[in-house]
Amino acid sequence: MVQTPLITLTTDFGAADGYVGTMKGVILGIVPDARLVDLSHEIAPQDIHGAAYVLYASYSFFPPHTVHLVVVDPGVGGARRPIALRTPTGFFVGPDNGVFSYVMACESVETSVALINEHYLLPHVSHTFHGRDVFSPAAAHLATGVPIDELGPSVADLAVFPTPRLEVARDNIVGEVLHIDRFGNVVTSIGRLLWSEDELSLKPVFAKARLRFNAVRAMVVVAGQEITKVHRTYTEVGLGEVLALVGSSGHLEIAVREGSAAEKLGVSLGAQVVLKL
Amino acid sequence: MVQTPLITLTTDFGAADGYVGTMKGVILGIVPDARLVDLSHEIAPQDIHGAAYVLYASYSFFPPHTVHLVVVDPGVGGARRPIALRTPTGFFVGPDNGVFSYVMACESVETSVALINEHYLLPHVSHTFHGRDVFSPAAAHLATGVPIDELGPSVADLAVFPTPRLEVARDNIVGEVLHIDRFGNVVTSIGRLLWSEDELSLKPVFAKARLRFNAVRAMVVVAGQEITKVHRTYTEVGLGEVLALVGSSGHLEIAVREGSAAEKLGVSLGAQVVLKL
Amino acid sequence: MVQTPLITLTTDFGAADGYVGTMKGVILGIVPDARLVDLSHEIAPQDIHGAAYVLYASYSFFPPHTVHLVVVDPGVGGARRPIALRTPTGFFVGPDNGVFSYVMACESVETSVALINEHYLLPHVSHTFHGRDVFSPAAAHLATGVPIDELGPSVADLAVFPTPRLEVARDNIVGEVLHIDRFGNVVTSIGRLLWSEDELSLKPVFAKARLRFNAVRAMVVVAGQEITKVHRTYTEVGLGEVLALVGSSGHLEIAVREGSAAEKLGVSLGAQVVLKL
Repeated sequence: MVQTPLITLTTDFGAADGYVGTMKGVILGIVPDARLVDLSHEIAPQDIHGAAYVLYASYSFFPPHTVHLVVVDPGVGGARRPIALRTPTGFFVGPDNGVFSYVMACESVETSVALINEHYLLPHVSHTFHGRDVFSPAAAHLATGVPIDELGPSVADLAVFPTPRLEVARDNIVGEVLHIDRFGNVVTSIGRLLWSEDELSLKPVFAKARLRFNAVRAMVVVAGQEITKVHRTYTEVGLGEVLALVGSSGHLEIAVREGSAAEKLGVSLGAQVVLKL
Repeated sequence: MVQTPLITLTTDFGAADGYVGTMKGVILGIVPDARLVDLSHEIAPQDIHGAAYVLYASYSFFPPHTVHLVVVDPGVGGARRPIALRTPTGFFVGPDNGVFSYVMACESVETSVALINEHYLLPHVSHTFHGRDVFSPAAAHLATGVPIDELGPSVADLAVFPTPRLEVARDNIVGEVLHIDRFGNVVTSIGRLLWSEDELSLKPVFAKARLRFNAVRAMVVVAGQEITKVHRTYTEVGLGEVLALVGSSGHLEIAVREGSAAEKLGVSLGAQVVLKL
Repeated sequence: MVQTPLITLTTDFGAADGYVGTMKGVILGIVPDARLVDLSHEIAPQDIHGAAYVLYASYSFFPPHTVHLVVVDPGVGGARRPIALRTPTGFFVGPDNGVFSYVMACESVETSVALINEHYLLPHVSHTFHGRDVFSPAAAHLATGVPIDELGPSVADLAVFPTPRLEVARDNIVGEVLHIDRFGNVVTSIGRLLWSEDELSLKPVFAKARLRFNAVRAMVVVAGQEITKVHRTYTEVGLGEVLALVGSSGHLEIAVREGSAAEKLGVSLGAQVVLKL
């Protein structure tokens, strides 16, 4: 690998305790010139789905060969396997608990291994902090160009979540709330959507069908409320008004201009969202 | 540009959602050896004034040619222009919504351009995340040494805030609360102040006059309360006591030793502050 | 120094105000190729003990010659000395207020100096932000290889906390709660512990004795509650159950699987913990 080694980190460790810094110390001890980018350390404790979404929305904006390290690991020290994957866009390192499900919906896994070669772990592996003792050294070694097969034997039957709800019919699409961000924007499973004039084309991540539809005539129904048309930008509605738009991840999003849609509509993760065409 | 490319980031994106990490992925895809420094991602949502202050208090401590990227952008996708500025100390990239007002009170703008040259944007520009699709690539290209004029045509009439209140008379100075930090320290528009013995000299950022005055005989009136003299350090008063001092940005600050002045005095942004000389 | 300069930062500055970013600007102005790692900026305001613990749990995972910069400094501008230490594992820079106490319980201090050589400070030193004006330039110069003795005269009688409670007897160990992390895990002064089969060996940091004992027969008493045995991993108990285990810092920890032990047990810092063997 000739380019600068680049590793992203996603955890539920928060910023207070030094856990993330410790992982970075381990990584830089192995690959001193690695560039380290934090995706999020504010994943809610044990929220594997939240980590999976943040990774899914971000990973494709990184250069090829980036190593994405994810440690949201409620099963640490138990039976779940520590794994690394290689896909056409990069490497993914973390626990085999479904946290890579949304990436795997977009990417073919070329190789997947269990991280058991002790040569690529810290000399003393604790039972409670594999982020430091297992995943960080593995990610660092991958970033230096160690072939993924060196890290351990091939594994199959990786853990994946049930696919998020997404039913595409001719005149409506039924999905669910996939993520709620810090602004209270409500991200749905209906994506990815791409604008062309007043039409939107849907190339769904979580279903097979494709579809084109008119954004102006569409209507979104969520939490018993109807939202007319799909807008292009927040600024097309007044302050405090609800709107539907294509969010930054290419998914249908419900938002409130300079406010929180999640709060205003009272919706939470998994709530049904219907897009009437 | 021969030195290491250095880019600072200031947003209201918070740490949870991966938005900032995604921007860094875009930047490092363009300039792999860039050094990235977070100024703040905890600007309150849509708080352009807060971002303007944080940038103002920090930018002058960075090396020349640093690129300062600010994305607090409630008007994203609307009519506000995406811009880049060059000043004698560096580059500033962000929306033309006033967020550079306090920097522009200190710095002459040598060049300002609208970021519309598609060659320096991501191939697909969303309507909702110009931080990723417009501002990050522009900042990255500036950091590699692309001349600012390449990024788009020159623009004038940049948006600026009304100047913060600062009236300098012979025996008193009337200002306002400009910022409140995480400790509850109350930063005022009265600055910058410099110590020389027991005297303070004021070289105001937001007014024209200059002044020297005795710090021991001065008195601050805020929220109906009188605070005698301007102290040098927190440790000159007892725990929990209110004091006035010259804060780290060189502005008059009201503080409570190991406590929150904003809470104790019940002041908020824009409140009047009088310094009697 | 030939390797990449590496500096860690630990403060109580929070993420909102740009104080940490400003420090990094100062550092990168002196040593442009430094790698900067945040340990924590969410130390509670003025919580010297909290900073001391986070540093203690993290520092040994960094490469040799790392410079650890700590700015939790309620006495800024007052009589406390700004200092730098050299130990066999690296450098430590910060106020002489006890924040290095736990590191000094593990490490011999080879050299300690007061940071008064103006050549290695910013040209203008404020009374309120030595993190920016004193500690950051000192750390940066150490990272470039400036000998520590250049920074100022040797100092002795460094401030240290009272040693945390740890009384080791043949059939019980009495300690205290040393730290509570973001998950609500309760870290005790009883450490460091190392597994070998079903036995734990204790090599205490805060006392002289050594001990081996059976983890299965041990019992922990804290906040009036008895917890049987010392477990290996969270996954050995059911969701929401209390357990004792060896935490990532090698100390005895009380945890709740996917919950907060601090909340469930109602314990706080300094509470007594008894380990019956």
